[in-house]
Amino acid sequence: MTPTLRMDAHQVEPGADTIDLLGLVAQFELQSFARLAADSAAAPDLEQRLRLSRLAAAAVTRRDRVLGRIAELGGDPLQAVAQFDGVLDDFDARTAPSSWWERLLTTYVGYGVADDFCRIAAAGLDAESRELVVELLRDSEHAELAVAALGAAGSDDEVLVSRLALWGRRLVGEALGVVQALLVSRPGLVRLVEQGSAEADASAKLFGELTAQHTRRMGRLGLTA
Amino acid sequence: MTPTLRMDAHQVEPGADTIDLLGLVAQFELQSFARLAADSAAAPDLEQRLRLSRLAAAAVTRRDRVLGRIAELGGDPLQAVAQFDGVLDDFDARTAPSSWWERLLTTYVGYGVADDFCRIAAAGLDAESRELVVELLRDSEHAELAVAALGAAGSDDEVLVSRLALWGRRLVGEALGVVQALLVSRPGLVRLVEQGSAEADASAKLFGELTAQHTRRMGRLGLTA
Repeated sequence: MTPTLRMDAHQVEPGADTIDLLGLVAQFELQSFARLAADSAAAPDLEQRLRLSRLAAAAVTRRDRVLGRIAELGGDPLQAVAQFDGVLDDFDARTAPSSWWERLLTTYVGYGVADDFCRIAAAGLDAESRELVVELLRDSEHAELAVAALGAAGSDDEVLVSRLALWGRRLVGEALGVVQALLVSRPGLVRLVEQGSAEADASAKLFGELTAQHTRRMGRLGLTA
Repeated sequence: MTPTLRMDAHQVEPGADTIDLLGLVAQFELQSFARLAADSAAAPDLEQRLRLSRLAAAAVTRRDRVLGRIAELGGDPLQAVAQFDGVLDDFDARTAPSSWWERLLTTYVGYGVADDFCRIAAAGLDAESRELVVELLRDSEHAELAVAALGAAGSDDEVLVSRLALWGRRLVGEALGVVQALLVSRPGLVRLVEQGSAEADASAKLFGELTAQHTRRMGRLGLTA
């Protein structure tokens, strides 16, 4: 093996793997738009309806910035997104929420895991793409809304709190299943995770990191993960 | 009657009637967001899905600019919008589309009438509010998308063309019913329509104008109104 073949995690040339990950981020943002719009329509009061519609609109802006980056890199934005069509269909089918609170938690946990995974894999991207993904996924407005609403609802309702803790465990299991399926079907994503990490068995450690972030996220709600 | 009481259509002071109309415009934009988001989720291909999500996001921006104007005028934005909650419930219940084409036409015709009505009533507003409403409602991107998609679909399908012409007649009947119900329940909207017009029986002529615009709109699709 010649030294020039060695990949420096922070100097990789954008290639097919990069387009794949950016396509996945854009697909998640497209799904996020649809989900937040549906959440807005189902919201119990006008103020939350307005806030959720703004978050949905922000997901459109984020998605279009990622599509712009794909085009800059010479990729086909539509194709890059389309290859991940239906990536959340199983997750959605298995986690149909039965109440407003479950719906809010589903978005919070589901996109929490998706964002964490994309951020971790983005460590293997070229600097400009990596910074774009990290900047876009830093948005925490939905988390704040979920924490405020779920915290207030749970503060005097022990039954709700234990139901939501149970729901959260089911959600994270399904979300980690989505990541698992992606890694199996997309070796490019595995390469990015490995390239972005200083550690030898980065993929193995990925699930530990995703679970730790989920525990922290549930902790913000006062819920046991 | 003293001369100072005489209203000049283009110099009226913003008051409760103004807040009402701006609240209605904002409510229509909120509904428009939800409808376009649902249309995006139902779109037959990714490109239309992306375009419709952008139009949904643009409706959020428009709505928030109207809410900002309501606040500037000393009104309560949430209250102004909330008073028109459910304004399209009857319309939606009676016009559930049974195909993608009917869905596209429903949004095109329904919001065409709503926008025309708001534009006509806005002639009775103070200059700044009027210009804002006219500027916001000039957006014709959805019309272009509908005209391109429906035109292409109908070009070699005579059965579809006659079904859509029929659907359009049903839609405009329901949409004019919404306007009629609004005028009966909201005398402030009648005052704005009268103030904005040079003619004595402006409300009576309103429906002629709305119908003429609808006919022109259907004509762009090559459909008989």
